[in-house]
Amino acid sequence: MSAEKMNVRAGIVVTGTELLSGLVTDRNGPWLAQRLDELGVEVAHLVLVGDRPADLAATLRFLADQGVELIVTSGGLGPTADDVTTEVVADFAGVELELDEAMERQIAAILARFRYLAHFSPQALRAANRKQAMVPRGALALDPVGTAPGLVLQVDGGPTVVVLPGPPRELRAMWPSAMSSPAATSVLARTRPFESARLRLFGVPESQIAATLREVGETLDLTPLEITTCLRRAEIVIDIRHRPGAEAIRDGLIEAIRARHARQLFSTDGTSLDDQLAVLLRGRRIGLAESCTGGLLAARLTERPGSSDYVAGGVVAYSNTAKTELLGVPTELIERHGAVSPEVARAMADGARHRFGASAGVGITGVAGPGGGTEAKPVGYVCICVTTGDGAVLARDPVLPGDRAEIRDRSVTVAMHLLRRVLTGAAR
Amino acid sequence: MSAEKMNVRAGIVVTGTELLSGLVTDRNGPWLAQRLDELGVEVAHLVLVGDRPADLAATLRFLADQGVELIVTSGGLGPTADDVTTEVVADFAGVELELDEAMERQIAAILARFRYLAHFSPQALRAANRKQAMVPRGALALDPVGTAPGLVLQVDGGPTVVVLPGPPRELRAMWPSAMSSPAATSVLARTRPFESARLRLFGVPESQIAATLREVGETLDLTPLEITTCLRRAEIVIDIRHRPGAEAIRDGLIEAIRARHARQLFSTDGTSLDDQLAVLLRGRRIGLAESCTGGLLAARLTERPGSSDYVAGGVVAYSNTAKTELLGVPTELIERHGAVSPEVARAMADGARHRFGASAGVGITGVAGPGGGTEAKPVGYVCICVTTGDGAVLARDPVLPGDRAEIRDRSVTVAMHLLRRVLTGAAR
Repeated sequence: MSAEKMNVRAGIVVTGTELLSGLVTDRNGPWLAQRLDELGVEVAHLVLVGDRPADLAATLRFLADQGVELIVTSGGLGPTADDVTTEVVADFAGVELELDEAMERQIAAILARFRYLAHFSPQALRAANRKQAMVPRGALALDPVGTAPGLVLQVDGGPTVVVLPGPPRELRAMWPSAMSSPAATSVLARTRPFESARLRLFGVPESQIAATLREVGETLDLTPLEITTCLRRAEIVIDIRHRPGAEAIRDGLIEAIRARHARQLFSTDGTSLDDQLAVLLRGRRIGLAESCTGGLLAARLTERPGSSDYVAGGVVAYSNTAKTELLGVPTELIERHGAVSPEVARAMADGARHRFGASAGVGITGVAGPGGGTEAKPVGYVCICVTTGDGAVLARDPVLPGDRAEIRDRSVTVAMHLLRRVLTGAAR
Repeated sequence: MSAEKMNVRAGIVVTGTELLSGLVTDRNGPWLAQRLDELGVEVAHLVLVGDRPADLAATLRFLADQGVELIVTSGGLGPTADDVTTEVVADFAGVELELDEAMERQIAAILARFRYLAHFSPQALRAANRKQAMVPRGALALDPVGTAPGLVLQVDGGPTVVVLPGPPRELRAMWPSAMSSPAATSVLARTRPFESARLRLFGVPESQIAATLREVGETLDLTPLEITTCLRRAEIVIDIRHRPGAEAIRDGLIEAIRARHARQLFSTDGTSLDDQLAVLLRGRRIGLAESCTGGLLAARLTERPGSSDYVAGGVVAYSNTAKTELLGVPTELIERHGAVSPEVARAMADGARHRFGASAGVGITGVAGPGGGTEAKPVGYVCICVTTGDGAVLARDPVLPGDRAEIRDRSVTVAMHLLRRVLTGAAR
């Protein structure tokens, strides 16, 4: 029955020896995975493989053996000898390569536009041109974005193979024409796009979410849902994916999570903390005072366009002198409580607010490590305070886990959550 | 060829459904690939696979069929039901899972340190604890860094499988003990490590480096070298790898590049710009004034421990008021030249230097976009200035390519290069 039909599964193959020595990070795989996911295609495997023909061929056979209906490859379409994808794909499909003369002329016209190629020998250029115009018999050649055409090939009794160039800009530009090719649309016609929901929580450990899921699963059959939980930047992200028809179960799960973690659940509509703060800060002005985070909070809040409307400014006050002179933190306060103390964090928040004429201020001071920790104030101890002109004050001084980078990053996330709570009036 | 025969090949398997929907970008695969590469192990395939046991099992069999001698997995060791790696690996190896009671106690002791777990039911905790203490018969359990132990397992007649946790910090911390396990060292004993060198250049286009490599290749046979060139954070990174014996060719290439790009080549010993600045700034104090980069420069300079010795502080001065009041930029200067101008960048640098009593100051003001560009000052136009108490001034006002994030990131890199030139006395 059609509601029970198998998921359409795909494999992604990204070629490039440089990816396997860790020198370069693949950007195409995740991009393709996301596009396929949106189309309701389940990616079974994403394989990075070097420029060795045997390894690429083995990967294609492996994916076909897994029953994927669609294989998307990236890379290996250039003019040099280590660009082998087209040949390997033709061999995999059991068809010959043929010169596509119209494509050869099209590539020649493109190459003629590159002035730097004037240094090359005409023979070398012709060979490169011809190599890129070889097309497996029966394949659809996709117009080049750079100099390399893409390919869509329906393998007899096997998957549809979509061959795309490696440069991310070319790959992305070629994607729509690849997906609207007849061989691809016939695969996509069999997909049923996923529905999905994403929940975000802050201030609850992952293991407690695991316990919640187990508990809910005892009274609600969650098997139609694919639930992924992960910890990201000190927040828990729960992704729920399902086929159409399981909405009631999904909503039941979301309500059960809300019932147990109302205070920690801050997003059910896909918005991130950054999204929410950008909305909450509209029409306000905020001043920042950072010690151990060294500007990270300011950098993150100014990531998005338009943030200059609400980020009045920030002070990175590493030294005590900077704290007293630029932020007006009383010297006595630092002497009495130490530079890392809730009292100083609060004075920093107030100081930033006044300095920048802002309606809210944030102060962060802590021990990011790896040195500088004491028994009373260990590495990871961070004092964070948000104050507003209306007299609202929300402060925390957790000991955060992780290395220096993680402590700094998490401090920023905690500060942003405190700010969110103050601005939504949920502070306590 | 004997060099081929002696290669030890490995496969990397990174698990996590979230990686296959493109929601999360894998950081472990490239890190592991780099470590294996350094050890002289050739990575044949890097496979991202979801949390489905059958897909993971098929991947392990595929890699074994390819004849890899080492498989490294990441992820799937958590306490929840979708964490299946240990079970699948045991099944792949054809061995039973056994409760490791010492490990169970060790995990219990770790869990006891987490105060928040006191809210949990003892049963749920015990189940999670026990699940993580199950070890395939014959495997070596590696001490947990978080709560999950790693595993090293020699498959009978097959590869050595190293099972590591998914959180990057835990994976990295566990790596040395995994690689010093008997089953791993016996594989590594058969490798011949690569030699490598890394060159970094700033201020030269990638196509010019390609031309240089072609030119050098006409008089020097570069075939024993594997050369990878990539553009990273506005710098060109050239990686040269080779087997022992090709050192003279490598050094010849490096000298040829130095001869052609002496001014742009800033690192041949592997040090990064950040490394070099950390050394150059020792014993000095720097003050920062940032507008469009919003704190990113301060955040980057304070990434490393000990940076509080030389980063006196910074001001994120988005608004004109902040520029005049906190940095002493004259209002007339802003009115006459605009907030984004070389004049204001210089006044910001001077202001930061004076404000923080520093020996050097950096000012950055620009149009990060996507809005706010004009014909005269388009998006990407950034004015950067470094000044010192000795009267040195080095300024640039490039139009940087890319989106908002890239423009901000590149502005920081340019500022750091200017600072490096001033501090090395190479300024001009």
